[in-house]
Amino acid sequence: MPADEFDTIRALFAPLATSAGARGLLDDVAVLEASGALVVTTDAIVEGVHFLPDDPVDTVAKKSLRVNVSDLVAKGAKPVGALLTLIWPNGRPSHELRDFARGLREDLELFAIPLLGGDTTSTPGPLIVSITAFGTPLGERVPSRADAKAGEQVWVTGFIGQAFLGLRALQEQPEVIGAYARDRVGVDDVIDWYRVPRPPAGFAEAIARYASASTDVSDGLAADAANISRASGVGIRIHGEAVPLSAAGHAHVSKFGARGLAELVTGGDDYQALFTAAAEHRSAIMIAARAADVNVALIGDVVEGEGAEISMADGAPLDLRRLGHRHKLGR
Amino acid sequence: MPADEFDTIRALFAPLATSAGARGLLDDVAVLEASGALVVTTDAIVEGVHFLPDDPVDTVAKKSLRVNVSDLVAKGAKPVGALLTLIWPNGRPSHELRDFARGLREDLELFAIPLLGGDTTSTPGPLIVSITAFGTPLGERVPSRADAKAGEQVWVTGFIGQAFLGLRALQEQPEVIGAYARDRVGVDDVIDWYRVPRPPAGFAEAIARYASASTDVSDGLAADAANISRASGVGIRIHGEAVPLSAAGHAHVSKFGARGLAELVTGGDDYQALFTAAAEHRSAIMIAARAADVNVALIGDVVEGEGAEISMADGAPLDLRRLGHRHKLGR
Repeated sequence: MPADEFDTIRALFAPLATSAGARGLLDDVAVLEASGALVVTTDAIVEGVHFLPDDPVDTVAKKSLRVNVSDLVAKGAKPVGALLTLIWPNGRPSHELRDFARGLREDLELFAIPLLGGDTTSTPGPLIVSITAFGTPLGERVPSRADAKAGEQVWVTGFIGQAFLGLRALQEQPEVIGAYARDRVGVDDVIDWYRVPRPPAGFAEAIARYASASTDVSDGLAADAANISRASGVGIRIHGEAVPLSAAGHAHVSKFGARGLAELVTGGDDYQALFTAAAEHRSAIMIAARAADVNVALIGDVVEGEGAEISMADGAPLDLRRLGHRHKLGR
Repeated sequence: MPADEFDTIRALFAPLATSAGARGLLDDVAVLEASGALVVTTDAIVEGVHFLPDDPVDTVAKKSLRVNVSDLVAKGAKPVGALLTLIWPNGRPSHELRDFARGLREDLELFAIPLLGGDTTSTPGPLIVSITAFGTPLGERVPSRADAKAGEQVWVTGFIGQAFLGLRALQEQPEVIGAYARDRVGVDDVIDWYRVPRPPAGFAEAIARYASASTDVSDGLAADAANISRASGVGIRIHGEAVPLSAAGHAHVSKFGARGLAELVTGGDDYQALFTAAAEHRSAIMIAARAADVNVALIGDVVEGEGAEISMADGAPLDLRRLGHRHKLGR
């Protein structure tokens, strides 16, 4: 990438570096004023692994930020800053840089996150965006995966399996999405969920207040429930019919039955919050969700024991042929 | 990368996650206890751009950490934590993962930096390592590039152009380095400097105490001096004969004259500290350098005016045919 492209990038991003500590993106470091706990997360997305080469590059920018916002929100933290590492392919046209910057700018503004700094370099390989995001806890503690206790309830935000459906729609018949949409419910919508995740940003404060254990759903509902189960030394029992699905998700389960549900709960890339809470908080959680305009569903129970199970209406455990994972495209 | 490789990585790195806030690398986030200013930097290195495909992978791990340590040290900050984002090529053999982890572990221990967390993913492209590093200021302020004032003196640590010479040795005649070394001074040594930078870690406290402006030398001495000049609105005048060179550097200048010196000061990847300080601190800086076993050289003056110039012994400015930049291999 020619040196003047880097100047272009800096000019594009400098208006986003609104905090004094960002030093106008002109210094080697940023300075973050912190008091008390700072929540830190970093997630990278790779072209051909976490997004498709044809995905519009402004959606790539948004996804890179949102997968990190998702981690902070699931920990009951308010995002306060981000670092951007942009690994840009030698062959990508430079007008796409402007589209990338525009997408990132829109989302930094939407989530009110100042850009603190970063690094930009060229690569002979695929486009990679790595974000490190900082947050301040909205509560007294930062819920880990290890804090679930038997007797509590299990909650999840948003709708599950949207990204799975979106990716499938893009991969199977990308050239006939228009026709496809006439026969299937909400195809454009699930593609949008795949490309631009929708972490429940307005719900971070409720998570801080009511959650015991919490994680974001990135590897799939089943795998992330298993993570809480293992870390907390408890069993997680989820009622399959309570898993929140969009109209497209319901259509998928109507068509494919239990196998369809198994796909939705192992597909991953949901970027929603999965948390446990004492039963006494049930009403407060539902009221907070309504206030934040976030969908939240009570999906199960924390029990003595181990493992995460999702049961069907007849009580039989859902057959999870594969566990969720992060690297669907790359496998 | 199969899922069990990720477990392998976690097992390799977990012993390095020595702080409670790292949560044993088992959570989605890390929690950093901070009070006051936190210095933050992030730098990524890309195979084929910032290191050679044949570089031993343990040196790649060390380089990825040290280019970030360099930023913190140049800002007078003590490293207190790091996040690792490892983008691992599908085809790289898994035993190299262990070598990578070993190299990183050695350097985290050497610099006493706890690993706080990170992200690991596979890629169809080149190996990429992105580190975000955190530091606490050792002084009351964090020197920026913009704080140089006319009348001050200009200093640099280490030896300049070592990485340039090392890269040249590796690129020109990699198969005859042994023979090459018989005729040239310190070839193995400059290769080692290229692969494993040597930021002046013990000198951070002196920089915090005495430096006005400071930056690390990553784009080349000439370019980074120009950065200070531009940011501070001053001129930087460097005496070419005062630029600290190793025996190999002196041999290069003996052979190629002014052109050789121009190469050394524009080659980049030095990862030393370039700083300005009031003249009254001169003795204290030299004493601190001796105590820290760091080479430091007084190389010039801050003047009214603009631009960075390097003059030869006869007073003529060095002809810098190209300015330093970060992306030598990629161009």
